[in-house]
Amino acid sequence: MYKAKVLIKRRASILDPQGKAVEIGAKNLGLKNIKNTRIGKYIEFDVNTENKSMAEEEVNNYCKKLLANPIMEDFEFTLDEIK
Amino acid sequence: MYKAKVLIKRRASILDPQGKAVEIGAKNLGLKNIKNTRIGKYIEFDVNTENKSMAEEEVNNYCKKLLANPIMEDFEFTLDEIK
Repeated sequence: MYKAKVLIKRRASILDPQGKAVEIGAKNLGLKNIKNTRIGKYIEFDVNTENKSMAEEEVNNYCKKLLANPIMEDFEFTLDEIK
Repeated sequence: MYKAKVLIKRRASILDPQGKAVEIGAKNLGLKNIKNTRIGKYIEFDVNTENKSMAEEEVNNYCKKLLANPIMEDFEFTLDEIK
C-alpha cells in the first residue's frame, strides 16, 4: 500500500484568474508584498497495489484521466510506502 | 524575494465529498486500487520582503485571512529564497 501525493499546477504560460482575484483581496487586506499567486490542487490518496511500479501506473492513469486537465495543467507526484 | 509554496488540506476528521466523487469516477474507469482521495489546494506566490521572518509573517497572514478556511482546513508552507 502506498500514499500518493499529487501536485497539479497550471502551466506557467496560462493565466490564473483565480490567483489574481485572491491577490486583489490580499492587497485590500494590506498584504502588499505578494505577487504572482497561482492556485493549483494538492491531492492525497492511498494506492493498494503489490509493488511501486504498479502504483505509479495507477497514479499516472488517475491523474491523466481524472485529476488533471491535460490541456492546461501539469502534474507531479510522490509515492511513499505505508507500513 | 521568496517563493512561497503552500499546501492546504482539509482536516482528517472532515469528510471530503469532492474526493469521494472523483474516486467513484476512478472506479468507473477501472482504477480499482485507489482509496481515501482527499482534495486540497496548492498555492504558489512570490513574497517581496527583506528577510525571511517578515516573509513568514506575510504568508501566515495571507493563509489565515484568505487562502485557508480556518474552520476546516490546515495549512503548511515552505519559503525558498529567489536569487
